[in-house]
Parts: sequence; C-alpha cells; structure tokens
Amino acid sequence: MTTHNTAPTQFVEANGVRYAYRRFGAKTGTPVVFLQHFRGGLDNWDPIVTDGLAVNRPVILFNNAGVASSGGEPADTVSGMSRHVIAFISALGLNQVDLLGFSLGGFVAQQVALDRPGLIRRVVLAGTGPEGGESMDSFTPLVAEHATQEVPTEDNFLYLFFGPSESSQAAGRAFWKRRHERTDQDVPSSMPAMGAQASAIAAWGMVPVSNRYARLKEIQQPVLVVNGGNDIMVPSINAFILQQHIPNATLILYPDSGHGALFQFAERFVSHVTMFLDS
Amino acid sequence: MTTHNTAPTQFVEANGVRYAYRRFGAKTGTPVVFLQHFRGGLDNWDPIVTDGLAVNRPVILFNNAGVASSGGEPADTVSGMSRHVIAFISALGLNQVDLLGFSLGGFVAQQVALDRPGLIRRVVLAGTGPEGGESMDSFTPLVAEHATQEVPTEDNFLYLFFGPSESSQAAGRAFWKRRHERTDQDVPSSMPAMGAQASAIAAWGMVPVSNRYARLKEIQQPVLVVNGGNDIMVPSINAFILQQHIPNATLILYPDSGHGALFQFAERFVSHVTMFLDS
Repeated sequence: MTTHNTAPTQFVEANGVRYAYRRFGAKTGTPVVFLQHFRGGLDNWDPIVTDGLAVNRPVILFNNAGVASSGGEPADTVSGMSRHVIAFISALGLNQVDLLGFSLGGFVAQQVALDRPGLIRRVVLAGTGPEGGESMDSFTPLVAEHATQEVPTEDNFLYLFFGPSESSQAAGRAFWKRRHERTDQDVPSSMPAMGAQASAIAAWGMVPVSNRYARLKEIQQPVLVVNGGNDIMVPSINAFILQQHIPNATLILYPDSGHGALFQFAERFVSHVTMFLDS
Repeated sequence: MTTHNTAPTQFVEANGVRYAYRRFGAKTGTPVVFLQHFRGGLDNWDPIVTDGLAVNRPVILFNNAGVASSGGEPADTVSGMSRHVIAFISALGLNQVDLLGFSLGGFVAQQVALDRPGLIRRVVLAGTGPEGGESMDSFTPLVAEHATQEVPTEDNFLYLFFGPSESSQAAGRAFWKRRHERTDQDVPSSMPAMGAQASAIAAWGMVPVSNRYARLKEIQQPVLVVNGGNDIMVPSINAFILQQHIPNATLILYPDSGHGALFQFAERFVSHVTMFLDS
C-alpha cells in the first residue's frame, strides 16, 4: 500500500487542465480531498495527518489549476478555484467526497460545499475563516513579508504557522522535518500563481456591505472547524464565527498554537477528524 | 461494581459540614470530581457521562455545602464554594484530582484551580465562563423565570439546557429520562440554597473595573472548555474567551445545542473528555 511518501503524483485532465494529485490509503470509504493553503503543493501536508486519515478512507491530495505541479492558469477567485475542484472530482468519477480545506483551501472548501452540495458529504475547515471575516482583508506587514518570499524557508513557516512558545516552535521544526521526508518533492508554485491566489484571498477577506455571513447558513453539510487559539494569518475568532453561523458545525481550538495547529497537534487532529468523519 | 444508578450516597465530614457524595468506577487512576450547576444535586448528571468516564477512572459526584443532601450552610460566593471543594477533597484523603465543572460548577472549578493548584491535575469546564465574562451579569427574564421555579420541570430544563430545534429538544427529553432512571434520587436543593447560589453567580458575573480576565492567565492546569454553540444561560462566546486567556486550554463547541451540550452529545463528550484526560 502506498503512503504519503510513496504515492506517485498522478494527473487527470478536465476542460483542458492537467490536475496533479496523489491518492493513497484505504480502497473503500468516502475519499477525503485535501485543499491546500496559499502557495502550497502536494508536499505541504503533514504525513502524520494524511497517513493517519488514510487508515480508514482514501486520501486525495490535490493541486488547484496552475498551482505547483498542476497545469492550467491559476484562478484568481475562490469561485474559480471551486470550479476547478468540482471539475477535478468529477474527472476522477467520484460521486461524493469529504473535503479537508486548510486556510485558502478552507475558503475553497466552503465555496464547493455551497456550489455543489450533493458532491460533498462532510467538511473539515482548518486555519480558515468565512468570506468577509474578521480582520481578514489584509495581512500585517510582517505576515505579508514572511508569506511572500520567493523561496519560503523554515523560519517563514515557523513564524506564520506556529506560536512563539518553545513548544510550538519545536513542533514546527518537527513538522518541517516530516514534511520533507518524501524524496521526490512537488515543485514550488510559481510567482504568478502566488499573485492569483493573493487576489483571491484579498477579495474573499473584504467585508461585504450587507448580509455578512449570510451564505454560511446555506452550508448543509456537517462541518468541523479547527484552528489554533492564536492564528496570526486568519485570526482565530473567525473559527468561532464559522461555528456560530454554519448550521451544523463543531469547533475545536487547540492551545498554544496558531495557523498550523493541525500539524502541531497532528495525532490529536487525526483523532478528532476521524471521530467527526465517522460519526 | 457500582454505577451512577447504584452507587450509594455517602457522607464525609470536614469543619463541621457533612458533605454528600457518590463514588464509583475504576478503583485506580486520578479521580474526577464533578461540580454541579445552579441548584443541581447528585442526580442532575447524565449517567452516560458519569458511567462513561468511570470506565477508566474513579468518578466522584459532589454536593457543595447546603446543596441538596449535603449539610451545612450554602456558600454565597464562588470562593466560599471553592473552600468547601478543597475541604471535601482533603477529607477524602485525595492528593490530586481532576475537576469537571458544569456552569456554576465551572466557576468553582476555575477558583479551585487557582486557590489550590497542586491539588488539581486537569480541568474540564462545561457550559461556563470566566469571572466578569460577557453578558454574565444577569439572566434574561425568561431564563430567570425558568431557572427559579420552586419545582423545576422537564420543560424548564428543555428551555434552559437545549436548543429550540426538534433534534435538540428530543435529546433533552432523552437526557431527562436517563437522569431519572435512578430510583432513590437525591433531595432537591432548598430555596435558601438557591438564593445563596444566585448571589454567587451574580457577583461572579460582574465585569471588573480593570484587569478583566487577568486571573485566567494564572490557571496552570491543562483545561478543556466545552459548550453548545448557542448557550442562553452562559453565552457561548465565554467559552471562546476562556480558551483565549487560559494558557493551556482547548475549546470544543458542539452544533445545534446550548448549555446542556454535554448531555445532548453525551457519548461524544465522553470521547472528547477521555481523550483530553488521558493525553
């Protein structure tokens, strides 16, 4: 059986776009499709999380159009990214999947759940927030600087995804090691892909003139919202807001952690997500 | 082995107060002491929760002084209640316990953790909030009316502890049945006990002039905060505030539920608490 570190990168084509993905884990069960954060590719996940969830279900890692090893033009709206996800899932011939969206991937997961409810069984939203959320219209200058380096370093991730405490930083370094164990890593995303995604994030973060959070009420699926208690990229209050407005949402916030809480508490996250997906 | 429904009510005396309690479950492990809500006695817990947690540890249900079957004068401050908890735990000869405090019991659990940190290993806070929390200085008239009936009815609990949805109300009725399965129920709390507790709750809820939430930073123990997403007795935002200010706190909010979420999702709550206490 293949794993996070051994599953080959595969490609599937739809509407002229060649989407990169990896599939591994159990042969049966509702597959869980992983939707990645800003600039991230197939190797920006934690093997503990992906292999942990793959024990009981197929896991599918996915690069949106124009991101890392995927072909096509990068979408510059969350709606556009959602359309690519739907095209990709359909191209694989899957009738229903679970989504696990992290950060920007969480924006996209919400949009897919709204755009094609019948396709999505359950949704896990990590380190993310609602459209027009609280303080989501811009990054602080320091966050922006760390997030936009041409070649992101371990230090950038330690700052953006983990808390300042020694234990959080140590967890970050351990994650960084795990995430590099695979020898044939995905290619980095291009600078144009970064630009398109930055546009999508900025537009998603803008507070609407009226009906703020109204669309969250339309999300039909059971949702698990997870974050660290002190996320400097998508402020943690947004996780609470998601729970308050999505009709069937459970919230879990971890201590002493930030955006990358799902990697800092990888085993615990796997247990919580497994309980949620199997309940 | 005795259970929630068969464990005899026992008494232990300290400083002239005769405290009522029940102990059951595993013989070894750190005992978890249950601290009850406004007016509640030994039978206001859910057997699924108490027996579920008793599988792996001793469970101790406790009536504070002057409450239900306990003797003594009811304390009219949270500090006073905390002193009774400490006296009780010491009288049992226990060196260290976990606390599970629900609502008013959660106020007391926080206070005990601050007053005698060495005695407390871990804390579960359900349906509760910090001293001087958000909208905790008074109840709405309807909540006050339902909460102060001389003989509280099923309808009072369905209104106060559960949400308006059919599924939440059905869970409430199922809880009400389970909670009455034991044939020799604890006596109700007196009206003077209610008055003393109401004073303690009102004082705890007053927003301080300065240093709001400052004492939460001093709580050393790992804490699990749990509530329903729509608590009309202790507004759910207070669970978020607890998570944000207690240094090592995890937050879980359940969907479509209120104050009694720990009973509505009794099995899930047992799983989450077990994971927390054993981690």
